[in-house]
Amino acid sequence: MLSQSIKEVIANSSAIRAMFEEGRRMAQIHGADRVYDFSLGNPNVAPPEEVRRAILEIAGNEDPVFLHGYMVNAGYPDSRKAIAESINRRFGVDFDENSIIMTVGAAGAMNVAFKTLLDPGDEVVVFAPFFGEYRWYVRNFGGELVIVPNASEDFQPDLAGLEKALSPRTKAVIINSPNNPSGAVYPAKTLEALGGILEGWRKKTGNTVYLISDEPYREIAYDGADVPYVTKFYANTFVAYSYSKALSLPGERIGYLAVPREMDGYGEIWPALATANRILGFVNSPSLFQRVAAVCADAAVDTAFYRENRDILYNSLTEMGYECFKPQGAFYLFPKSPLADDVAFCEAAKKFRLLIVPGRSFGAPGYFRISYCVKRETVLNSLESFAEAIKSV
Amino acid sequence: MLSQSIKEVIANSSAIRAMFEEGRRMAQIHGADRVYDFSLGNPNVAPPEEVRRAILEIAGNEDPVFLHGYMVNAGYPDSRKAIAESINRRFGVDFDENSIIMTVGAAGAMNVAFKTLLDPGDEVVVFAPFFGEYRWYVRNFGGELVIVPNASEDFQPDLAGLEKALSPRTKAVIINSPNNPSGAVYPAKTLEALGGILEGWRKKTGNTVYLISDEPYREIAYDGADVPYVTKFYANTFVAYSYSKALSLPGERIGYLAVPREMDGYGEIWPALATANRILGFVNSPSLFQRVAAVCADAAVDTAFYRENRDILYNSLTEMGYECFKPQGAFYLFPKSPLADDVAFCEAAKKFRLLIVPGRSFGAPGYFRISYCVKRETVLNSLESFAEAIKSV
Repeated sequence: MLSQSIKEVIANSSAIRAMFEEGRRMAQIHGADRVYDFSLGNPNVAPPEEVRRAILEIAGNEDPVFLHGYMVNAGYPDSRKAIAESINRRFGVDFDENSIIMTVGAAGAMNVAFKTLLDPGDEVVVFAPFFGEYRWYVRNFGGELVIVPNASEDFQPDLAGLEKALSPRTKAVIINSPNNPSGAVYPAKTLEALGGILEGWRKKTGNTVYLISDEPYREIAYDGADVPYVTKFYANTFVAYSYSKALSLPGERIGYLAVPREMDGYGEIWPALATANRILGFVNSPSLFQRVAAVCADAAVDTAFYRENRDILYNSLTEMGYECFKPQGAFYLFPKSPLADDVAFCEAAKKFRLLIVPGRSFGAPGYFRISYCVKRETVLNSLESFAEAIKSV
Repeated sequence: MLSQSIKEVIANSSAIRAMFEEGRRMAQIHGADRVYDFSLGNPNVAPPEEVRRAILEIAGNEDPVFLHGYMVNAGYPDSRKAIAESINRRFGVDFDENSIIMTVGAAGAMNVAFKTLLDPGDEVVVFAPFFGEYRWYVRNFGGELVIVPNASEDFQPDLAGLEKALSPRTKAVIINSPNNPSGAVYPAKTLEALGGILEGWRKKTGNTVYLISDEPYREIAYDGADVPYVTKFYANTFVAYSYSKALSLPGERIGYLAVPREMDGYGEIWPALATANRILGFVNSPSLFQRVAAVCADAAVDTAFYRENRDILYNSLTEMGYECFKPQGAFYLFPKSPLADDVAFCEAAKKFRLLIVPGRSFGAPGYFRISYCVKRETVLNSLESFAEAIKSV
């Protein structure tokens, strides 16, 4: 009964789904508090108090016909303006309401951008390790994901690899900093070099390659790490943003796509994005939360809790003998698998009631991902299991 | 810079967009209250008071990490259960939480269903007149919309036309009752006959043709019109529902897909729908409003205001000489165009500051659509313009 395209997704997602089901079974056997589930990126720090105040204030006082009604597909102009001004203040760029289209999270934003850009057979380059869902976002429109393998200990993008990957069919490059799953942050000099390569490609071939910067973790950075604003280095950039992590609102599906006016083809791309938002069935980003996001545009969750989880896990695991890059942002640790076969190691870890995700799911075999947006007690109680797991192999 | 697929949408949506822009220009020249904009289906009756109470109660008291967090892609199980029970109570069916997947409105629901069902080249049959966006929802997945022209004064589906339209590539049939744009409601005997044809087709060919019943207007029915529950007549039905109209929440993007367990292939279709919801970028339906919808599942807006608008327009326009079917539901009037060329008539109507949509946009040339979800004074003040428009041609 199923379409070939959804069958393909299901066949390739079955490993992770099987793990979730296994986790549920394990929780029934051992008790939920003795199963250490590090598989999901579901924020567990409360939204800033401003968020609740804004919801109550807006829902309590604004005209409900306006508040819950349709607006233009790009979103309420005043919300877009407030968000543009917040970005300008914080990152020194020059956006206005016609630089921001409100979307159903960053996942919605990326699908809107790809619907606008991709013809079947077009290629989209991504650096491993990467969030596995990108495969499907690109495939939804008949595009092909071209993977540049990871080539460094600190998970910086392989720019020489990018130059080799570019082809006449390349339409876009995805970056994601702070990165899921590695926790790497790309510094200004990397973005400058990346922008230079794409600019050079345009001069050489006449083809614009757009950068899709997926930034749900922008506000989750540690130790004073700077997360430079990508459009400053390359104007042909779509910033896909989500309040999922910054305001701990993943279920509300609120985000935006930021599009510099200096982008090649801005004049035709801008209305096309709103059209794509409409016909893909999003129609518009949820209306109440557009207004909440505008009021809370400068707010962010307290990241100290995540940083402490990172420190406990990073320090403990490296002491146990795990090799691991120290994440500069996001809420993931991406250690080397003690077994060359990361799937086998994740399977073995289940014996110790650990649920972790093989690097293969992120285009990086030989690693595994720990999502540390979990309770402190889960982190602390799991340490013995991590110690046993590395000893067992 | 744009993909071919988005260019196609833009080329075919430009007439309506041009009208919106024209409307804006007209409002600047004549004053907004002297331009009668009947072009949009944006509900203007306030949501029931329960909705505001539910938002304040839930946002004020529930744990925000849970409330705004990710849940399973199908939606909160308790919300799905509450909604299933409300449907069971009101329509005498037998749903449970595994019959309901929460979606980003009915537009999201239809896209999720089509992603799950359609391979490129598959056909989806629709009865004219129909909501023009269906073209794109089907095309998003490479499907072809097959249009059965309208064959009756009262806009009932042409079932003989359906039998001719079925082919080995037919994967689904769309119905929409109460109908946008005609206001027709399909009675039980029509649904029974329709189900019989699809059941007969399955017996003859071995192919299941799914019915997609788009029902955002289910709660907007007049004069005691019964809107039968479609799954009772044909189990292979996906009900695409939205709270946009029933609770006046179109901007919040909250709806669901109801899927009977008796459906052919339910066991593989059910998990595939949740996967489609995820990878299309919806991920899940907005979380706060999933909980609001569950609390307000039995509530509905007061439809008296719409009915009164209908009565004023229907009585006045028929008196002026417009030929018009009397709508039994939804908030649209779909009169015959006084000019054979409906586009020319809608163009001529602009001279009288009327914004109305040509029937061609709904697969029914020779008609025009009036959306009467507008202020009473707009309805009353527009009457002179409608009288002048018909006299002028």
